[in-house]
Amino acid sequence: MHVPIVPYGGATSIEGHTLAPHGGVCIDMSSMKKIKSLHVEDMDVVVEPGVGWIELNEYLKPHGLFFPLDPGPGATIGGMCATRCSGSLAVRYGTMRDNVINLQVVLPDGDVVKTGSRARKSAAGYDLTRLIIGSEGTLGVITEVTLRLQKLPSRSVVAMCNFQTVKDAADVAIATMHSGIQVSRVELLDEVQIRAINMANGKSLPEVPTLMFEFIGTEAYALEQTLLVQKIAAEHHGSDFVFVEEPNAKEELWKIRKEALWAGFAMEPDRQAMITDVCVPLSRLAECISVSKQLLDASPLTCLVIAHAGDGNFHTFILFDPSQEEEQREAERLNHLMVHTALSMEGTCTGEHGVGTGKMKYLEKELGMESLRTMKRIKAALDPNNIMNPGKLIPPHVCI
Amino acid sequence: MHVPIVPYGGATSIEGHTLAPHGGVCIDMSSMKKIKSLHVEDMDVVVEPGVGWIELNEYLKPHGLFFPLDPGPGATIGGMCATRCSGSLAVRYGTMRDNVINLQVVLPDGDVVKTGSRARKSAAGYDLTRLIIGSEGTLGVITEVTLRLQKLPSRSVVAMCNFQTVKDAADVAIATMHSGIQVSRVELLDEVQIRAINMANGKSLPEVPTLMFEFIGTEAYALEQTLLVQKIAAEHHGSDFVFVEEPNAKEELWKIRKEALWAGFAMEPDRQAMITDVCVPLSRLAECISVSKQLLDASPLTCLVIAHAGDGNFHTFILFDPSQEEEQREAERLNHLMVHTALSMEGTCTGEHGVGTGKMKYLEKELGMESLRTMKRIKAALDPNNIMNPGKLIPPHVCI
Ligand SMILES: Cc1cc2nc3c(=O)[nH]c(=O)nc-3n(C[C@H](O)[C@H](O)[C@H](O)COP(=O)(O)OP(=O)(O)OC[C@H]3O[C@@H](n4cnc5c(N)ncnc54)[C@H](O)[C@@H]3O)c2cc1C
Ligand SMILES: Cc1cc2nc3c(=O)[nH]c(=O)nc-3n(C[C@H](O)[C@H](O)[C@H](O)COP(=O)(O)OP(=O)(O)OC[C@H]3O[C@@H](n4cnc5c(N)ncnc54)[C@H](O)[C@@H]3O)c2cc1C
Repeated sequence: MHVPIVPYGGATSIEGHTLAPHGGVCIDMSSMKKIKSLHVEDMDVVVEPGVGWIELNEYLKPHGLFFPLDPGPGATIGGMCATRCSGSLAVRYGTMRDNVINLQVVLPDGDVVKTGSRARKSAAGYDLTRLIIGSEGTLGVITEVTLRLQKLPSRSVVAMCNFQTVKDAADVAIATMHSGIQVSRVELLDEVQIRAINMANGKSLPEVPTLMFEFIGTEAYALEQTLLVQKIAAEHHGSDFVFVEEPNAKEELWKIRKEALWAGFAMEPDRQAMITDVCVPLSRLAECISVSKQLLDASPLTCLVIAHAGDGNFHTFILFDPSQEEEQREAERLNHLMVHTALSMEGTCTGEHGVGTGKMKYLEKELGMESLRTMKRIKAALDPNNIMNPGKLIPPHVCI
Repeated sequence: MHVPIVPYGGATSIEGHTLAPHGGVCIDMSSMKKIKSLHVEDMDVVVEPGVGWIELNEYLKPHGLFFPLDPGPGATIGGMCATRCSGSLAVRYGTMRDNVINLQVVLPDGDVVKTGSRARKSAAGYDLTRLIIGSEGTLGVITEVTLRLQKLPSRSVVAMCNFQTVKDAADVAIATMHSGIQVSRVELLDEVQIRAINMANGKSLPEVPTLMFEFIGTEAYALEQTLLVQKIAAEHHGSDFVFVEEPNAKEELWKIRKEALWAGFAMEPDRQAMITDVCVPLSRLAECISVSKQLLDASPLTCLVIAHAGDGNFHTFILFDPSQEEEQREAERLNHLMVHTALSMEGTCTGEHGVGTGKMKYLEKELGMESLRTMKRIKAALDPNNIMNPGKLIPPHVCI
């Protein structure tokens, strides 16, 4: 009897990761939520996989520490490992790949594997930690995670700046990265996204392409960096550069940003969203966003653009009525075109959301059949009966 | 006919990685040394695996860029990937794990695999890039590498400070990391190492435990960080805090540091060195070094201590006469004791040098048999005839 097993965390994943196309047992990990040990001196913490990143950060705050990954509100550490997620702070702190020290994983045959020690770096054997990160529940169930933590910065400044075109905004994001300035966030929002945010939050932000920056560090440093970026923005027709330093105001801004998707729903309440997630080399970002924006503007559907611009990663929320087949098809067409645009620029079909079922069809074009065959060989070696989250990540047509 | 294949880069690896215990063909990769394409705008470069990191940095300098991994002089990018190396700058920029975007790898069956796109982040399937990094030539031959580059900092300051004990020095390194100060290097050298450096380089540095720091960034920032560390050092009996800002003087200091091993040989020319490489959680570093130092001081052999202290990683060079069996045994005994001390502190037997043949015997204690079995399953899936660098990394007693 080979019953499929589908691990289930916060269920905020986007590409059908937690569906059960072959039936089976869904293991809800959300009750395994103990924080097992905090090592303040080592800046690490050992947690069970069901802990949410928001809860974890509440727990860490009094210790002056935080965990810098911020995917969907409700996401769990286990799900975040399994999807190799990132978020707005990845430009500074990296993705889940870079912030996990050690995992405990139950393999399909019942073996309980420890993937590392608690040392910050190690060259002891194959990197099983990174193999599990991004494996989307197809290789085993993550039952314990040791996370690398960061100091809460003593100082942070949020800056916002308006532009005439998304291209100008993207160019400033790129130029900022090139200048060597260390931003901790650089998020791009198009005019449609800003309009949605205004509607959902009763705000009156200028409805134009906008960059939101965060700078951290000591007072002198944050100020110095901010002024450098202001100069770059001015060189690209940026206007209305504003700073926010008051803690509640900053928190509100990031909350609004994090809830951008729901703002979209507030604008068109009966719609669903197709969420795209391409990522391209930084030098191609402005072009990739511009090309995409032309497509989106020409579509009858409402489309919002939001980018983790410092990483070359951007999302669009394409709002469609699921009862209208042609709207669904149109949303798929736009997603598809954007993926192919990104792939033609040496980019990826998924910067951070993962493969699930939705992105399987693009992997061969992105990585080649040899690469997929290698993945399938690893899958078959660790899960010969294909019980772990079957039907995900590896396209069905791959043979070993 | 299953002929073993041993890839061979700069041959600077330390744990017997390039030996051929089962005979076979050694593939010298050092002539594949083209720099294939530099993308200044994306801060990445595509190279063949035989390029050395020193040559690469000479090539990059006029473009204002550099690659921040600095293992043994002579090491090649392919070998550095294969050993998952790091170096003095890892405290700021991470290890090879964090600085490779994409690999091309020839697998044992001849499949040529591309492990990623050129996007900076991606969640597209299993992380084959990280699986190959650290695989020590046991899974395939790396034939092309896309590396992430960094801006050459506009400003850097090197600071040196003297201490009465290695514990004081280690405590200052730890306190510096905890303070959130962003050092780019923090290296600890014991009094024996300093003596060797003085002898080899005609210097007259005070022969006491010493910390060498590097701070980078803008002028204001580097200065601010330096002063903060000076304060921490003063609180731990640090003395003679000196700054070096003149480019040639800084370069000389890092060159001397990089050549520390040869300085050891200058002190005792007819000896060989047993090089140890443990890494522990940061909070245990001072204790681990102190315990080790007692052992070393009590030994008849000359032992030099040198640490990448910000990562919790330290090396000792144990000088012994290979013709004297008891000296060799004594060196092994010291190495062995240090590994076990580190493992008892949740550390690793190898922070950066890798497993080769030398560290195989410690992996079961560090990671458990389940973990090794998983590695062996992966190895068997990708290299069923065990032709790639057989006899390395996975201990021979592991069964699948
Ligand atoms: C509003 C919104 C904003 C978002 N923003 C971001 C963003 O900025 N960046 C980003 O990267 N993502 C973002 N996401 C996507 C999502 O939050 C992430 O993919 C997140 O990592 C999923 O975590 P989860 O706990 O919800 O996982 P789930 O959805 O429950 O599961 C995801 C996958 O992980 C597996 N899994 C879950 N738990 C385990 C376990 N313990 N062991 C093994 N496998 C397991 C599941 O089988 C499944 O394949 C966003 C989503 C929403 C709704
Ligand atoms: C003085 C000195 C200082 C050092 N300092 C450091 C340090 O600070 N940090 C650190 O991490 N290390 C350090 N090392 C160790 C060493 O430099 C590193 O391990 C380095 O990464 C080895 O690279 P290499 O090109 O010399 O590899 P080699 O020694 O040639 O090979 C190492 C392994 O990689 C495999 N390999 C080589 N090329 C390929 C390829 N193209 N494809 C697949 N497999 C391949 C080989 O089969 C072998 O298993 C130091 C060494 C010395 C001598």
